[in-house]
Amino acid sequence: MSNPEIETQLAPLRERVQEQGNLVRELKAKGAPELDVKKAVAELKIRKKVLEEKELALTPSVVSFDRAKMEDLLKRRFFYDQSFAIYGGITGQYDFGPMGCALKSNILALWRQFFSLEEQMLEVDCSILTPEPVLKASGHVERFADLMVKDVKTGECFRLDHLIKQALEKLSAAKDATAELRAECEDIIIKLDGLSKQELADVLAKYNIKSPLTGNDLTPPIEFNLMFATQIGPTGLVKGFLRPETAQGIFVNFKRLLEFNQGKLPFAVAQIGNSFRNEISPRSGLIRVREFTMAEIEHFCDPVHKDHPKFKRVANEKLTLYSACNQMDGKSAQALTIGEAVSSKLVANETLGYYMARIQQFLHAIGIKPECLRFRQHMGNEMAHYACDCWDAEILTSYGWVECVGCADRSAYDLGQHTAATGVRLVAEKRLAVPKTVEVTEIVPNKQALGKTFKKEAKAITDALTKLSLDDIKTVETQLAAGGQYKLRLPDGGTHELGTESIAVKHATKTVHVEEFIPSVVEPSFGIGRVMYALLEHSFQCREGDEQRCYFTLPPLVAPYKCSILPLSNNAEFQPYTQQLSSALTKAELSHKVDDSSGSIGRRYARTDEIAIPYGITVDFDTLKEPHTVTLRDRNTMKQVRIGLDVVVSVVKDLATTKLTWAQVLEQYPAFEQQEATK
Amino acid sequence: MSNPEIETQLAPLRERVQEQGNLVRELKAKGAPELDVKKAVAELKIRKKVLEEKELALTPSVVSFDRAKMEDLLKRRFFYDQSFAIYGGITGQYDFGPMGCALKSNILALWRQFFSLEEQMLEVDCSILTPEPVLKASGHVERFADLMVKDVKTGECFRLDHLIKQALEKLSAAKDATAELRAECEDIIIKLDGLSKQELADVLAKYNIKSPLTGNDLTPPIEFNLMFATQIGPTGLVKGFLRPETAQGIFVNFKRLLEFNQGKLPFAVAQIGNSFRNEISPRSGLIRVREFTMAEIEHFCDPVHKDHPKFKRVANEKLTLYSACNQMDGKSAQALTIGEAVSSKLVANETLGYYMARIQQFLHAIGIKPECLRFRQHMGNEMAHYACDCWDAEILTSYGWVECVGCADRSAYDLGQHTAATGVRLVAEKRLAVPKTVEVTEIVPNKQALGKTFKKEAKAITDALTKLSLDDIKTVETQLAAGGQYKLRLPDGGTHELGTESIAVKHATKTVHVEEFIPSVVEPSFGIGRVMYALLEHSFQCREGDEQRCYFTLPPLVAPYKCSILPLSNNAEFQPYTQQLSSALTKAELSHKVDDSSGSIGRRYARTDEIAIPYGITVDFDTLKEPHTVTLRDRNTMKQVRIGLDVVVSVVKDLATTKLTWAQVLEQYPAFEQQEATK
Repeated sequence: MSNPEIETQLAPLRERVQEQGNLVRELKAKGAPELDVKKAVAELKIRKKVLEEKELALTPSVVSFDRAKMEDLLKRRFFYDQSFAIYGGITGQYDFGPMGCALKSNILALWRQFFSLEEQMLEVDCSILTPEPVLKASGHVERFADLMVKDVKTGECFRLDHLIKQALEKLSAAKDATAELRAECEDIIIKLDGLSKQELADVLAKYNIKSPLTGNDLTPPIEFNLMFATQIGPTGLVKGFLRPETAQGIFVNFKRLLEFNQGKLPFAVAQIGNSFRNEISPRSGLIRVREFTMAEIEHFCDPVHKDHPKFKRVANEKLTLYSACNQMDGKSAQALTIGEAVSSKLVANETLGYYMARIQQFLHAIGIKPECLRFRQHMGNEMAHYACDCWDAEILTSYGWVECVGCADRSAYDLGQHTAATGVRLVAEKRLAVPKTVEVTEIVPNKQALGKTFKKEAKAITDALTKLSLDDIKTVETQLAAGGQYKLRLPDGGTHELGTESIAVKHATKTVHVEEFIPSVVEPSFGIGRVMYALLEHSFQCREGDEQRCYFTLPPLVAPYKCSILPLSNNAEFQPYTQQLSSALTKAELSHKVDDSSGSIGRRYARTDEIAIPYGITVDFDTLKEPHTVTLRDRNTMKQVRIGLDVVVSVVKDLATTKLTWAQVLEQYPAFEQQEATK
Repeated sequence: MSNPEIETQLAPLRERVQEQGNLVRELKAKGAPELDVKKAVAELKIRKKVLEEKELALTPSVVSFDRAKMEDLLKRRFFYDQSFAIYGGITGQYDFGPMGCALKSNILALWRQFFSLEEQMLEVDCSILTPEPVLKASGHVERFADLMVKDVKTGECFRLDHLIKQALEKLSAAKDATAELRAECEDIIIKLDGLSKQELADVLAKYNIKSPLTGNDLTPPIEFNLMFATQIGPTGLVKGFLRPETAQGIFVNFKRLLEFNQGKLPFAVAQIGNSFRNEISPRSGLIRVREFTMAEIEHFCDPVHKDHPKFKRVANEKLTLYSACNQMDGKSAQALTIGEAVSSKLVANETLGYYMARIQQFLHAIGIKPECLRFRQHMGNEMAHYACDCWDAEILTSYGWVECVGCADRSAYDLGQHTAATGVRLVAEKRLAVPKTVEVTEIVPNKQALGKTFKKEAKAITDALTKLSLDDIKTVETQLAAGGQYKLRLPDGGTHELGTESIAVKHATKTVHVEEFIPSVVEPSFGIGRVMYALLEHSFQCREGDEQRCYFTLPPLVAPYKCSILPLSNNAEFQPYTQQLSSALTKAELSHKVDDSSGSIGRRYARTDEIAIPYGITVDFDTLKEPHTVTLRDRNTMKQVRIGLDVVVSVVKDLATTKLTWAQVLEQYPAFEQQEATK
């Protein structure tokens, strides 16, 4: 991004962004009407997008990537493919074949080691089916929706914003479109994000927009909740949803988890599992799907002490940070150490910063290209309803910059919501440095009198009294003082009149040594499918001079198989060696593939390269002689060495666990030279 | 079961079973009406159950187990607990806390190594949301249902068979019940399993059975499908279900998987994932739940060669086999090697036998008690709709014998069903030993003539012609021979008349070298939650002389944490050692827990025992002196040794990976004697 030629081309675009960014700031500063701010923000986003697209177009690595070629390979060797294809398939659902599944498992195993084990997190595994009240409290029932319209005849659905944009672009591209119409269309497209449901409906009507597929009329806009609904149990009375994120399962277990941690903060909880979103029109392969695996961490901490004990260990990690401020100014992302970013308050606190650095280290470890990773800060207006600060780890792919890991400070939002909904206080306690004296106002029931008057119901009444809020108690006090009675409502709907003969309001002072608080939550949230897709793009290569020979340079740590075993031909004498090697690799817990099919050795190497096998052992005629040797081949360089049959498995083990590099192997063992004929 | 005293008590019960078993055989042999057979089988089941209950009552280990005590511990230390409890909870759904989740992950990791890696299986990860046509073909939409009735006022649902049994038992237990009524009720209860929906409705009416909770009227019996239904996509037109088993995802991918395996059989595919069943009234804790993790294997093989290359390796494994025949004869299960069982045809084939032996080896490895494991063969009448032979690995728990792993020969059922539903031939090919000559009858289109007459539609016509069945072709031949025209129906509904000018039927002989066949499937299917529950029961112990100190003897391989680190007190001097040990354990990939809370060391040992931590390192004042040493404690024996700080981590690593036994540690290092005061 420091290329001056490119910068010259980008300069005017950067200026347009900054101009609009300033306008947004100005509007906000002077408290302009919300709609005006929204429109200005929408325009800002458009200008940012234009800038970003230009920037990407000028980045050669992205341009040269051949997605169709990679997708063909992924399909052909069954990394993943559309689910239920023999039944016509379902969009937005994918099945992971042996290679995709192994890659995913390896990424998750590394994730567990890198986060759960390293940080001693508590890992949980919660239910997917979630009853409605939980997701009402979390805000998902009300807010987790997109607007759509339906074809009145076929029932075909369209995401409203996509549809209007497409229709207006078509209108203004028409030959007979007047300059006035074009300007109108452009104006609406720019403002699209900021328009209300009614305003969007007006646009539909004004331009008489029909179904792009059939020309049929469309329904008015409908809010479509993106959660899959079902009924739990046979009564049809318990509505449930498939969870749209794994986080809520952790929040509702907060009390149990805090207790497991012996009441101490901070602690982090991890969960790996599937979530579901009923996208209106899924697309972009693994990027936007209906069913996906997430790995989420909820780090609970004291809201006033968000420092992190291990922050020092990562303080020098350099990150590419694209701050909200730089985005509004049309500036590039900047490289900073996380230590600098936190001390300058660009990143809000150490805990958030610590996780950002660890996210980066993890992504680098699995093979994401460092130059294609940045952290983008959410601007105030795009923050989810629960977040108070949020940085997305975005990875550059042929689809542009894709959000793959979110890292949000959710503050006390979720625990607060569930506390309010259930009455169960999801709080932690901390010892006060200095005990403090507080005034307590409480209701004191006269149990004897209540028992006499209300008999069996007395208990329900005293229970209800303990649940009164401070405001309620004040009301009681006022009413009793005026000589009146307080009308107490019981949970079963009944009411009772209570007077001074049965209750009293007492004021007292109390010395307290601890205080209760709702912990803050910092949440790193990984979309595993997206990370995996980006990794596949970053590791996709074709051999120089033979563009049809493609392969993936996946690091051994995550590669589906660690090693292949290839007998040079189907000569029966090779078999005992092949079997011996396979048993030894199994014993060493190294996944591997024996390819004893016919076909030249070069052809078979090419096949193992396609499924990213980093190392290959070939059994040939020299193997039969003493001392028994084999060749060991490196996928990335295609170089081979001659190596003893007795040591090859331990060498592969060390290579696969990154205790040894290929360069070291080359130094230690004699090179083996042979052409790889693939025909 | 060879205790003669117990056998004397069981003898009359065994006789009653055998008598009824013989009756069933006789009825089947003479082709008696289905209802008679069903009734006889139902009575057989009852008698078997009486026998089994008596047998269990006479087994002391089961009687002495205190389930409430174990459940209290599981809840208190959050192994698992009811989901969404702060919202009132949902029956049949559980959240796994840190200990349950780690135990589950460890079991699954071992499973992967034991099956996927060892057998070089192809592991896949398929969609949970499944469109309706797939589950129609598999038989689940039609058959995967239970009968229930609803309270007409409250909507409360009851499983019909449970309800009737309960009501009739109550009726016949009443003081004023006549002997006649009692006999009637008993008769119905015995026949319950064999009654049709209408017969059950008649029983409801005859005895005027009402809701046991409210006394309200009940609806007529309703078939309730146990799958959770939802809509995929926004149109409301694509009905889907949450999968009730993971197997279907594998079957629909058969072609891709066979291709991945380069067309060769046999091969096995594994999948670990969640499945869902909307139970009418879930109960028995983890045994019957609505959401559960399965680990399934589909082993595809040639239906006429079900031998297994590795069978010899397990042939001497001794299994407790409870054959269908023994069940009908009121006999006990018998111990046999799997080699004997297969050669005597008790177990149908080597592949089925191989997996049974491997299932047993796996269950022993994770800690299931060998004397509490048996394989029960399904009797003909209880086989699932897809199976042709099935042995369940049943584990004895306080709930009785629980089916934890199924091992079924599903034959060609599933691939056949999906082939029929989609027209995609899910078949494999094998080379014939001797090429054979077959007669081929095919339609030869006159493409030129078709092109001339039908223009653009010619392609659709030739495509439709290739899809005609042999029967269709014979019809064509007859009609053309009679000088008529054949009316061809196109997929779009249109029809065309074709005569000899545009098509002909040709007979030819062809030499074929391969033949197509639908592979057979052998399916080991693990209910991970059930296995885990049984394992917890089998490993639950209380200290002799201190019944309040309970713990789990989980083997180190699957224990949630491998090790604890306990500083003797909160003396600051211990801290560097505690931290050093924790880092070293993390580096060695050993999950561990540091407990530096206050409380006596004995109290803290008891706490780590509760969560099954097999080894404990204590840092004490001797640790501070050179040479630095710590104590290492074994959970099961509570014995301790004094051991160097520099070697303790590698010793724990060897213990945790079963490379070293505690007995060997005791021999190598000096014992450390100290009372474990817990107060």
